[in-house]
Formats: sequence, C-alpha cells, structure tokens
Amino acid sequence: MSGKIFPTAQDAENAFYEALERCDLEGMMAVWSEDEEIVCVHPAGARLTGQDEVRESWAKIFAAGPQARVTIEHQVAISGMMLAVHSVFERFTIPQAKPEAQPAPIVATNVYLRTAAGWRMIVHHASPAPAAPAPAAARDTGPKILH
Amino acid sequence: MSGKIFPTAQDAENAFYEALERCDLEGMMAVWSEDEEIVCVHPAGARLTGQDEVRESWAKIFAAGPQARVTIEHQVAISGMMLAVHSVFERFTIPQAKPEAQPAPIVATNVYLRTAAGWRMIVHHASPAPAAPAPAAARDTGPKILH
Repeated sequence: MSGKIFPTAQDAENAFYEALERCDLEGMMAVWSEDEEIVCVHPAGARLTGQDEVRESWAKIFAAGPQARVTIEHQVAISGMMLAVHSVFERFTIPQAKPEAQPAPIVATNVYLRTAAGWRMIVHHASPAPAAPAPAAARDTGPKILH
Repeated sequence: MSGKIFPTAQDAENAFYEALERCDLEGMMAVWSEDEEIVCVHPAGARLTGQDEVRESWAKIFAAGPQARVTIEHQVAISGMMLAVHSVFERFTIPQAKPEAQPAPIVATNVYLRTAAGWRMIVHHASPAPAAPAPAAARDTGPKILH
C-alpha cells in the first residue's frame, strides 16, 4: 500500500499528525501497520480493529472536516526494541474559530511496532481530556530507552 | 513497596483487575511500575503521571465505591520482549443495580513493561465505549508474540 519507511517511532508519529492535519487518508494509512492487528479508538468512539474499520473511520473524519492545526504537547515516551508507547496531548486549533470555541484537548496513547517496513502505528487510543497539564508540569523529555 | 512478581503481562493484568474489583489499593499499586514513568487516564479523567498521582486517584476511586464485578472481554494483545500492549473492554456489574442501571462498558489500553521485578503496568488509558464489539466480532485470541 505504501513504500514509506519510518526509521523511528517518532517519525511515524510525526507522519500520523501531519496526515491528520492535512486530512490525507493515504498518508494516514501509510502510518498504520498493514500486517498486525491494529486498534483505533477515536474520542468517545467505538473501538475499531483492522485496516478496513480504521480506514473507513479516518475517511469519514477527513470528509467531515474542518481542517485544524494540531499541536502535540507533554509527550511521555517509552521505547523498547519492538514496541514504543507515546502518551501525548493533542491540541486542535481551528483557524476560523474564536479562542473560546476551540476544541477541548485530547489525550492519546499511541503505540508503534517495529516492522520489516520500519515503525508503524498499531494502537491509537484518544479521549477528551479535562485539561492539559500545567506548563510547570510539562516534561517533554526524550524517550526512555529500554534497550 | 511490594515483593510481588508477575511472570507475564497477563499475570499483571489479572492482578490489576482483581485489585480493582476488591478496591485493594496496595494490590493495585503493586501492579504498577515503581521505577519508570507511569501514565493513567481514568474514564473522562485527566492524565495522571507518576506514583503519587496514580495512587491518589485509585485511593479516591476505591473510597467512593461501590464495589463492582469486572469482566474483561475482547482482548487484543501484542507482546514484545520488553513491552506488551493489551486492548480490552471492561464490563462493570454492580450486584445491587438493575440491568438497565449497569455502567456502560469501558475500553482500555493497558501497557506492561518487563522490569527487573517482573512485568508491571506503565500505562492504563480508559475511556467510555459506545458499545462492546458484537459477539461475532469477538476475537479473544492469544497474544501476538513479536519475538
């Protein structure tokens, strides 16, 4: 489906959010693992499994728009040889909207798998967050490497 | 804090839900990694990081009760050498409550880390699920082993 190779989990994560921002369905699906079981939970959504359900959900989201800028904050990352887990806040900004009409932040758990074709996403679990951590609590530290 | 050793991620998961069911704070915290960054998102809750925030949240939950039976369904498991990821549905049953008053199911992403003291939880991300998968879609397959 795609010849893209992501040398690190962070590369895959960057491509994921770029595709989300651009409403780029092919770019989005190029991030997901093709071979393994995949799991996607959109905010307040059902758990989706497998390429077909995940692709269909992103197609609907991208068709509905509106396009928004996405900023990733407060990443906590843990990296193994084969799996990497990133916990992040997703802050969406809709250019046309007033500050008080901006969406609430989302907290997401993203899991990446090292495949023969580089790092790919296997789990994206997103849910509405009451609030992002205060700046004082922000720790955008480098990933914790386990190996 | 605890001498408990969980030889597999599944053992840690079983202990997690047993502690949850029994409102057993020490049993719960014995499942979590002591050394690594840990992340906990309760349904519709803020992202909590670190032992202190996570312990405090479970203490509040357990103090509030009521105790409920927890059934885990539709597990999707992916296991690496150092990390394991389980996606599950948590179905809570309150013995005194009528069927229509039972809580909605929760979808959870649980991440376990192989530490020097056995497998421990490092991420629990739970959010309300509109519905569990239909039985026909249920796939309680054994874990996918990556190594």
